[in-house]
Amino acid sequence: MSDTAAFEAGSLAALWAARYREGVAPGALPDEAMLRHLMAHRSVRAYRPDPLPEGVLEGAMAAGQSASTSSNLQVWSVVAVEDAERRARLSELAGGQAHIRQAPLFLAWLVDLSRLARLGARLSHATEGLDYLETFLVGVVDAALAAQNAAAFFEAQGLGIVYIGGLRNHPEQVARELRLPDRCMAVFGMCVGYPDMARPAAIKPRLAQAVVLHRECYDVSGEDAAVGRYDGIDEAFQREQGLAPRAWSDAMVRRVAGPQSLNGRDRLREALGALGFALR
Amino acid sequence: MSDTAAFEAGSLAALWAARYREGVAPGALPDEAMLRHLMAHRSVRAYRPDPLPEGVLEGAMAAGQSASTSSNLQVWSVVAVEDAERRARLSELAGGQAHIRQAPLFLAWLVDLSRLARLGARLSHATEGLDYLETFLVGVVDAALAAQNAAAFFEAQGLGIVYIGGLRNHPEQVARELRLPDRCMAVFGMCVGYPDMARPAAIKPRLAQAVVLHRECYDVSGEDAAVGRYDGIDEAFQREQGLAPRAWSDAMVRRVAGPQSLNGRDRLREALGALGFALR
Repeated sequence: MSDTAAFEAGSLAALWAARYREGVAPGALPDEAMLRHLMAHRSVRAYRPDPLPEGVLEGAMAAGQSASTSSNLQVWSVVAVEDAERRARLSELAGGQAHIRQAPLFLAWLVDLSRLARLGARLSHATEGLDYLETFLVGVVDAALAAQNAAAFFEAQGLGIVYIGGLRNHPEQVARELRLPDRCMAVFGMCVGYPDMARPAAIKPRLAQAVVLHRECYDVSGEDAAVGRYDGIDEAFQREQGLAPRAWSDAMVRRVAGPQSLNGRDRLREALGALGFALR
Repeated sequence: MSDTAAFEAGSLAALWAARYREGVAPGALPDEAMLRHLMAHRSVRAYRPDPLPEGVLEGAMAAGQSASTSSNLQVWSVVAVEDAERRARLSELAGGQAHIRQAPLFLAWLVDLSRLARLGARLSHATEGLDYLETFLVGVVDAALAAQNAAAFFEAQGLGIVYIGGLRNHPEQVARELRLPDRCMAVFGMCVGYPDMARPAAIKPRLAQAVVLHRECYDVSGEDAAVGRYDGIDEAFQREQGLAPRAWSDAMVRRVAGPQSLNGRDRLREALGALGFALR
């Protein structure tokens, strides 16, 4: 079954078939609509220029801020970029991704420890805990939880999104472009806009659940066989998309071969140091 | 308005009032149901013992795996723990949180670089890129995106969840308990179960959007005033919940005062090293 059919039909069975290409969806669920929404996600890399309707960004922020945040610290922020020239510059910094230019809205999701640093200064209180990897990690997790809520909301509005990890290619330049204070870092970006239906995005198949879900303890039995099947599934998907066929295993291993395969992000730790994160 | 009323009414206006206690919700939105679902989140710390219905964990995994994952690397996994004794031990390791014992399901969300290490070994290919902070960060972000999709799905099923950052208090012991391989770390946990309605959880108010959302560039104008208002909002919330009133600013700054306030997580970097993450 084609992915487009899955999208049009919108049935859980069709979405499951597109996402896993094996197995079947669970039976009756009290609220299937949420699962259908979430399973229908695909990363959109072709956008119409139409701006977002009024109130949608505010809705996305409310969704994002409603996600959990460790100890209510709220150590994340967002910069919403609409200016076309700034988007063009960010596009270059992220490796020349054309969709950052194209989509009307670009969100830079920030690990933001600067707010607590400012509060500490105002209250004349030490904030040495900001210098630890733990606190940085809280910011990363909480920014991602918030972003994913925002993504789910955007998609429910008929908008498309794509996450931009390329925002970590040049962290210091991105920080300058967005005038980020010390201890503030754009951990990933997100394009938001209406998908260009002339260039539809596809649901990407994923590893079988048995590979990712472990019961009681971590267990690799069955992994080799499942990954073997997935290599075939991914290769078929690549062909359908007109992309070079490849074995997933091989492609992923190449992606993490060494520092040269990380698009400059092998210097992330150095960049974070320059931005005021000691990461003790 | 009470939080319970907001939950019962379920209107966007009521949820907005509970979440921000100032401002008003955006006007007409094409799909308001998703926003209502996401805004209704509250962390549940009191559970009934009833197990999850069949298929719900599989649905949550499908939701989680449908979230974006950088370059399709899929460097995260989950261990689902139902065994009561194992949950009791994990509860102790996470600082004695009773809800881990109480909720029928505990999910340990893993940054899992071990799968690619195994694939690299099988293909006799270098995977030196796994030793970089960047690759660890991809795992953290992708695990969080997946977890938040799962959370949204669980909540749509009438279940409650709470994230457990305390799983980072003793990373090596948690890894031993779950028999995690090298280069695999439980980055946070999640309790899942039916909320005990005799001890209802409340919607926690958050900072005004203007503090967290920046337009074009980072901007702190207005932050002091908004945080001042929020200190009052949070204090009122604490009183309503029968908790010690406090100023949010002050409480948060104390939380990051120094290594002694991090619940042992000041040694996270050392623990990650012991688990095989070089974090170059």
